[in-house]
Order: sequence, then C-alpha cells, then structure tokens
Amino acid sequence: MRMSASSLATRITRISGATRTSQDDLLAVEEPLEIRLGFEEAGKRVSRSISITMRTPGDDEELATGFLFTESIIGKPGDIAFVKPCSTPSPDSGNHNAIRVELEAGVTVDLGRLQRHFYTTSSCGVCGKTSLDALRAAGATAVPVNEASFSKQMLSTLPGRLRAAQRTFEETGGLHAAAAFDQAGELVVLREDIGRHNAVDKVIGALLSEDRLPAGDLGLMVSGRASFELMQKALLAGMPLLAAVSAPSSLAVQLAREFDLTLVGFLRGDTFNIYSGEERIA
Amino acid sequence: MRMSASSLATRITRISGATRTSQDDLLAVEEPLEIRLGFEEAGKRVSRSISITMRTPGDDEELATGFLFTESIIGKPGDIAFVKPCSTPSPDSGNHNAIRVELEAGVTVDLGRLQRHFYTTSSCGVCGKTSLDALRAAGATAVPVNEASFSKQMLSTLPGRLRAAQRTFEETGGLHAAAAFDQAGELVVLREDIGRHNAVDKVIGALLSEDRLPAGDLGLMVSGRASFELMQKALLAGMPLLAAVSAPSSLAVQLAREFDLTLVGFLRGDTFNIYSGEERIA
Repeated sequence: MRMSASSLATRITRISGATRTSQDDLLAVEEPLEIRLGFEEAGKRVSRSISITMRTPGDDEELATGFLFTESIIGKPGDIAFVKPCSTPSPDSGNHNAIRVELEAGVTVDLGRLQRHFYTTSSCGVCGKTSLDALRAAGATAVPVNEASFSKQMLSTLPGRLRAAQRTFEETGGLHAAAAFDQAGELVVLREDIGRHNAVDKVIGALLSEDRLPAGDLGLMVSGRASFELMQKALLAGMPLLAAVSAPSSLAVQLAREFDLTLVGFLRGDTFNIYSGEERIA
Repeated sequence: MRMSASSLATRITRISGATRTSQDDLLAVEEPLEIRLGFEEAGKRVSRSISITMRTPGDDEELATGFLFTESIIGKPGDIAFVKPCSTPSPDSGNHNAIRVELEAGVTVDLGRLQRHFYTTSSCGVCGKTSLDALRAAGATAVPVNEASFSKQMLSTLPGRLRAAQRTFEETGGLHAAAAFDQAGELVVLREDIGRHNAVDKVIGALLSEDRLPAGDLGLMVSGRASFELMQKALLAGMPLLAAVSAPSSLAVQLAREFDLTLVGFLRGDTFNIYSGEERIA
C-alpha cells in the first residue's frame, strides 16, 4: 500500500526482547531520478542524460535545477526555458523518474564539469587545498561578513523548528532535512530526501526558482553532518551560514574559514559549536 | 596540531546558554583520495585516474581495492599485481592522497561501469526495478539462505560492540562505522570513514585482501541508514545479512527481498526490525 510518493508501507517483523510481532511500517522511498538536459551545441539542439541519482520522489524539478546550479551548469533562473517530468511514469511505483530541463538558446554548457570525479591531476599532491583552489578557479568568492547577523537565541530554536516541520521523518525515520532560514528564524524553505545532498539541492533549487540567489540574508540548516560538499553548496548559493545538527569535517571547516562563511555544528538547543565566522553570531 | 591522519585539532568557540568558551576540538579529517588504475589495454600498459572521492585518511589500500571490487572492476585478490600510495605526500596534511592499483596482465577492464551515472535509458521508465535488473544483468545472484544463521541475542550486542570498537567517533562525533561480524558476534573487521560508502568499501577491501570473499558466513553492520547502494555492496560481497542502526530505504528493502538477503534496521539493543530474510534470524 502506497501512502505517498515519499513513503511506502510494508509488512515487517518487530523484535523487542522476547516479543516478536508482525506489523506495518513506513519506509522512506528511494528511487532513481534521471536528469535529461536539453541545450544548444554547435547550432543544433541536443538532449543528454547527465545524471541518475537515488532520491526520494517529490520536488523533483527543484532537485534538478538545484543540482544544475550547484554543479555550475546554470547560473540563474533565466538560463532555463522549461522543466518538466518525462511523460511516462514508472510502471512499478507510478512516480515520474525522469525529468527534462531545457535551457534557453545561447546558454553554453560545459558538461566536463560533471566529470570532475574523473579529472586528472598533474602530480600526486591532490589534497584539501586542491579542492579549495578548484572552487576558487571556478569563480567562487568569499561571502561579505557584514551583511547578515544571526542571534544565538534564534539559532537555538532551529533544531526544534526543523523537526516540527519535517513531514516524513516521523513516519519513516529515514530522511535527511535541509532548510533555508532567515535572520528571524523562519524556515523559508524546507525539503527532505534520503540523500543529504539532494535535500540541499532541493532547497537551493526552490530559492533559484524564486530568483532569491545569491541568498546573502539566509542561513542553511542540515539535519546531519556538515561535509565539504554541503559547505560548497552553501557557498555557491551565497548563503553566509551553515548550521548542522552533527559534526563538521575538517575540510568543511577549512572551506568555511577560507571563504569567510559561518559554520555552526552540534546545534542542539542552546548548546552549539562555532567553527568559523563567529562575527556573524550576535 | 595534527593528532592523527583521521582527526585534526582546531580552536573553536563553544556556546552553552549564556556561556561562551574558546576551546580545542577534534575534527574528523576529510580529504580527497585519487585512485589511479594501471592495466593492459590493446597490448600496452596504461594508467588512468578513475576516481576522486572524499574520504578519511587511513586504510586507503583497502578503500581502493574495496571500491574496485564493489564497482565490479575486479573480482578477486589475484586480479591485483600491487597497490601502493603515490610517492609524494600532500603538502598541507602530510597524507598520501593518491593511490596506485596495478592489475595483473590479462585482467580486462571495463571503465564504462564507472560511468553508470551517465548511462542513457531507452525510455522514461527508469525506476527501482531498473536498478535491480541492472544488478542482475551484472551477474549478481541471490545468496543461499541455509548457509548462515544469526541469533537475536548476538544481534542485540552489535551496536555496543561497534561503538566500543570505534576509535575516532568518540573524539570527533563525525565518522560512520562499518563492520563485518561472524555468527558469534565477533567483529572480524571494523573501519571508519566520513563517507558511509567508504567505510563499507574499506571493510570489503579488507575481506578481499584476506581472500574471504564471497563472505557467506559474515554479516555487515553499519552505523547509519541502509540505502540501496550499501545493500548492493553487501550483495556483491556475498554477505547474507545487513544490520543498520537506523532506517532502511524502500529500495534497500526491495533489493534484499529480491536477492534473498536478510535486512535488519533500527538495531538498538534488544529491539530491532526485520525487513527481509527472517529465516536467517534464530
């Protein structure tokens, strides 16, 4: 029995000490989404399958556009002519698991950016600094420090707000959440996904569609850990603060310090750690 | 101050209510690892950079070989001539962030397998079933159900054993753990990494190097959630049981049921859920 696109009921066995019961349980849905990109190449229209990612169905258009933005394939809402699901739903779930993004004529596309996991380096010295240098070479710049300020009191309310707003987590226990919040602590956009990166891409795609990027007045909250890639997405969206419920990685901290971003970790009520950019915390 | 390859000390600000203190904290290290593969192609030796993954330094040889195995590039320890770190350490961390795997002459390599995220499908109907069919087409087969049995009592001891054995988690709070365990509950191999997939690849690489694959007598335990990709890695390693501390996804459950694997989730002391393969739980 399907409850929604993002959760699925199934029969399981529950063991509790010596007790064994058969019961219904809700699972977070994980299905592949194929992103097809249409664009002009050498004067003619082409269509390419550029990504297949495991995701939780829902907000697929935002996921696709957020992915294209954080991969630096597009830079503004006007680059997109239209986004629509492919017409045939998946036979087993009824979800539309392919989405088509058509770019405007004249938008140049460098698909080589998507191949970065296969790039060759000139020496054995690939390191954290290489990753930061690559970001800088791609045009990422430090976020101005004076434009936004976030209070301790407001930050301490965020985990509760995030949890209260999560639709599917309570049902399945299986989804990550990401949210953009303003300086008053309002959650401007909240999205969930089985993938941490997808949840953030959905948030950034939603902000992009409202032409709110770069979002120098908003912070980004994530339900898990803060990795290099999540910090990178905040930077590309121009968001000056990332707050994580769990630990940041060393490279996330290095990125935050190098690009003047504020990084908060272990945010649990009124206790948290500030790893970078303390000047934005009032 | 560097404490070890896998954790890094840094100065942070700790906020607790109205109290603000400056203190040292340990971060889980995240750095890129480049995997270079040497093999024979059309009669001559070539070397290719096939992957750059963010990982926690340590057990890099196992990570590289486990990655090659779970991506179906190699099938047995004998496919590998040697594995060694490239000679130049990273200038900023001192870690060796590139590793070279040389395959034996005569081992054929299909790098197209690594491009699967870019494969094109014949219709819009990509779905969970497509992913399972692709696994089957790649030669994955169901795991026999009669060969191993795991007791409820033993399973309930695993979270405590995993936590007790984790070296870096207590320090940094930032690492995932994965472990192979036998039917007596002994942790045969335990590895940690900032990436869930990497921790599992390190475990599988360690088993491969001891020529213990397929490991039909061992279960796999992970500290987080059970996704399709982790279930797939257990299947490819021939491990009949995956136990996760948190929730499984819908597609992980479908994969487990389709290939006769046992999937346990929300394993927390003596309560847990069985999603598939209950006949292996004694």
